[in-house]
Amino acid sequence: MDPTAHTEPWLLARRAQRMNPSTIRELLKLTEQPGIVSLAGGLPAPETFPVEAVAEATARVLKASGPAALQYAASEGYAPLRAWVADTLQEQGLRVTPADVLITTGSQQGLDLLGKVLIDPGSPVAVEAPTYLGALQAFAPYEPQLVTLAGDAEGPVPEALSGLTQRADKVRMAYLLPNFQNPSGRCLTRARREALLVHAARGGVPLVEDNPYGELWYDTPPPPPLAALAAQMDDGPGVVYLGSLSKVLAPGLRLGYLVAPPALYPKLLQAKQAADLHSPSLNQRVAHEVLRSGLLQTHLPQVRARYRVQSDAMQQALARHLPAGCHWVPPAGGMFFWLTLPPALDAAQLLAPAVRAGVAFVPGAPFFAGQAQANTLRLSFVTVSAEQIETSVAALAGVIRQALDTVGPCVADATVL
Amino acid sequence: MDPTAHTEPWLLARRAQRMNPSTIRELLKLTEQPGIVSLAGGLPAPETFPVEAVAEATARVLKASGPAALQYAASEGYAPLRAWVADTLQEQGLRVTPADVLITTGSQQGLDLLGKVLIDPGSPVAVEAPTYLGALQAFAPYEPQLVTLAGDAEGPVPEALSGLTQRADKVRMAYLLPNFQNPSGRCLTRARREALLVHAARGGVPLVEDNPYGELWYDTPPPPPLAALAAQMDDGPGVVYLGSLSKVLAPGLRLGYLVAPPALYPKLLQAKQAADLHSPSLNQRVAHEVLRSGLLQTHLPQVRARYRVQSDAMQQALARHLPAGCHWVPPAGGMFFWLTLPPALDAAQLLAPAVRAGVAFVPGAPFFAGQAQANTLRLSFVTVSAEQIETSVAALAGVIRQALDTVGPCVADATVL
Repeated sequence: MDPTAHTEPWLLARRAQRMNPSTIRELLKLTEQPGIVSLAGGLPAPETFPVEAVAEATARVLKASGPAALQYAASEGYAPLRAWVADTLQEQGLRVTPADVLITTGSQQGLDLLGKVLIDPGSPVAVEAPTYLGALQAFAPYEPQLVTLAGDAEGPVPEALSGLTQRADKVRMAYLLPNFQNPSGRCLTRARREALLVHAARGGVPLVEDNPYGELWYDTPPPPPLAALAAQMDDGPGVVYLGSLSKVLAPGLRLGYLVAPPALYPKLLQAKQAADLHSPSLNQRVAHEVLRSGLLQTHLPQVRARYRVQSDAMQQALARHLPAGCHWVPPAGGMFFWLTLPPALDAAQLLAPAVRAGVAFVPGAPFFAGQAQANTLRLSFVTVSAEQIETSVAALAGVIRQALDTVGPCVADATVL
Repeated sequence: MDPTAHTEPWLLARRAQRMNPSTIRELLKLTEQPGIVSLAGGLPAPETFPVEAVAEATARVLKASGPAALQYAASEGYAPLRAWVADTLQEQGLRVTPADVLITTGSQQGLDLLGKVLIDPGSPVAVEAPTYLGALQAFAPYEPQLVTLAGDAEGPVPEALSGLTQRADKVRMAYLLPNFQNPSGRCLTRARREALLVHAARGGVPLVEDNPYGELWYDTPPPPPLAALAAQMDDGPGVVYLGSLSKVLAPGLRLGYLVAPPALYPKLLQAKQAADLHSPSLNQRVAHEVLRSGLLQTHLPQVRARYRVQSDAMQQALARHLPAGCHWVPPAGGMFFWLTLPPALDAAQLLAPAVRAGVAFVPGAPFFAGQAQANTLRLSFVTVSAEQIETSVAALAGVIRQALDTVGPCVADATVL
C-alpha cells in the first residue's frame, strides 16, 4: 500500500486511507426515492421527540441564564447534567460520581476519543460479530488490528476474552454492546454478562460498554450493565461506559456521555478539549432542564409502547411472509431485527431488486470487522407504519424467494461468502 | 521515552502522551478567586450575545420543524446554513459553493479534522510564533514535527514558506491566522498576505487559514482573506479556510465551518462522520434562522464599537502605567493585546505575584511551538469594565516594576530564555 496519497498540493496522512464513507449513509441516499419504504434507517421515530418540552426548556434556560448558555464552558460538561447522569447510573448499580462523567458530542464522540487515547497503529481491539458500524468507523483512523470475538447464540463467547492474553500486543479494549445491539438486536443474559466479566478480568482485557438502546426495552428491563456488575466484583475488569441522550430524548441535540476510571479520565478530557473544546452549552442546559423535570418517566413508557407495537408488527409480517431457511430472533428492545437468509444468498445483491420492489434494508456485511456473514441484513421498524411494515416485508420476501429460485434449492450447510 | 504508559488495565496509545491539559484552562482555575480581575480569558463578552434573537429563532424553528431539528442529519451540515456560509464568503472574494462547506462543532473541530486527515507522526507542520494554543493542542495527538516560521514585525516572513521545500518530508500544511491573531492581535497587511501566497505556491506548501476574529475590526475591515487572494492568482497555493460563529454570534452553540478543496473534502467529511456524525441539527437551524434575519448587520457594529472602546481603555492604561522597556502594538481588531516585557523578565514568574496583586494574565510561552519568548504575555480586555482595566493594568505595572527592581537595571539587548 502506498503510504501516502497524493492529492496535490495536499498530502494525506496514512490513516486517511483507512477512512471510508459510511456504506449505510451512501445506501440511504439511494432509498430516498419516493415510493420506497425504507427499513434501512437507524433513526429513532421523530414522532417521539419531546418537541414542546425542548421548546419550553430552551425558553426557560435562555431567560434565566442566556449569556451563560451561549458562552464557552467547561470541557467536562455542564455540572448539573453530569450530576444527573451520575444519579441515573447509580440507580442502575454503577459506582460513579459526577467527576467521572464526561459529556460528549453524541456518544459517537466518545468512541472517537477512546480510539484516540487507546489505539496505536496495529493495537489489537476486540469487537463483536456483528458490531456497530459507527464504532468501526471511529476506530479505523487509529489503525487498530481488529479482532473478532467468537460468538454463539447468546453473544460473544466468554472464553474468547481470556484467550486474548496470548496476543503479543496487549488488547487495548473489547468493545461490547450488551443491550439490543445495533445491528443484531441481541441482548446479553445476566449469566453471559457475568461470565464475560470473569474472563475479561482473567485476560486483563478492559471493556468499553456502549449502551445507547438500554432504555428501549419492551416488556422487562435488560440485566444490569457490565459496569454495574463489574463494580460488584472483587477484582473485576476495567470498564468505560458510554451512554447517549439520542434515543431517550433526541439525537439532534448531539449529547452523549462517558464514564471513565480515574486512570483514563484526564486523557479523555484532554482529547475532548482538543476535539471541540466542549459540547454545546445551550444543549446541555436544555437537556438538563428537560431531564430534571422528570419527563423521561412519562416519555419513555410511551416510546417503549410504540416500539413494541412496531416490533410486533414486524415479527408478524416476517413470520407471515418469509420463506423457510430465513432466521431471526425477535428483539426484546431497541430498533432492529437481524435477519439471517439461507446461506446461498448474499444480502448485498438483493438490495437493488428490493429497491425496485419498493423496500430498502441494510446488508449485514459492513457490520463485520473480519469475515463477513454476507447472508445477513438489518431491518429497522421504528419510522414506518404497521401497514408499511406489512407491505414492505411482503415485497422483501418476494425478492428473497426469487433469489432462492435463481440459486436453486437451498443447501442447509453451504456458506457463500 | 517509554512508548506506552501503563495505567492498568488500560494501556494508552503513544499519542496520548502528547496530550496535555491546557495551560490556560488550568490557569483560569487559579484566577476564579473573588477580587481578581482576569485579563487572562479568551471569552467574548457575554453582554453581546443575541439572547433574545436566539430564543425567538429557537421557538420558530421548533414550531415549524421540531422533529427535523431534533433528528439525526447530514454530516455535511444543514444545507441552508452551508449556503449562507458560501454566500457570506463569496462576498469576501472566496470562490466557494455550498458543496465546499463543512459545518463543524466549533472551528476547533476543524483543526482536529485537519490534523487527523493530514498529519502522520513526524510530518512537518508550519506554524507562526506565537500561534493559537488550541491548534497546537488539536495537532499534538497526531504527532507532527512543528516548524516555526521565522517572523518580523509584520508577521511570518514569506521566504520562510518557500524555504520549507528543503525538508525531507513534505510540509503537510502551514497554519496561519491573518486577522487579529490569538494571541498576538496581529493583522497581516495585504502586501504580506500576497507575498506569503506567492512563496507558499513556490514552496508547494498548502495553507490552512483560520479566521475566527476577522469580523471584529474596530475602524476598517482587514484585507481580504488568503483564500480570496489565492483565488485571484493563476497558480496559487491550496487553501483550507476555517470560520466560526463563536465570535460573531455565540460560542455556546459550538458552530464553525471549513471550506476545503474537492481533493480534501471527502476525507474531512469521513473524519467528521467518525468524530460526531454531525453537528447539532437544532443549533444549525437556529443559527441559520438568526443569520438569515440579517441580525449581524445591526449586531456586529455594536460588538465592534464595544470592543474598540475596551481596546482604547486598555491602550490608555498600558501607556499610562507600564514602565519603559515594555512594548506592544495596539490591535486594530479582535480581543487581545500582546505585551513584550524587558528581556530579563519571565512572564510566567510574574503570574503568582500578579494574582496576589489582584490581576491575572496568560504568560506567552505556551503559544510558541518551538523556542518560547518567555518575556511575553497576553491580555484580554473584552469581559472587563474600563475601570477594571485601569486598576488591573496599574496593578500589573506594579508587579513588573518590582520584578525589574529585583533583576536589576534592564539591559536592552539581553535575552533571557
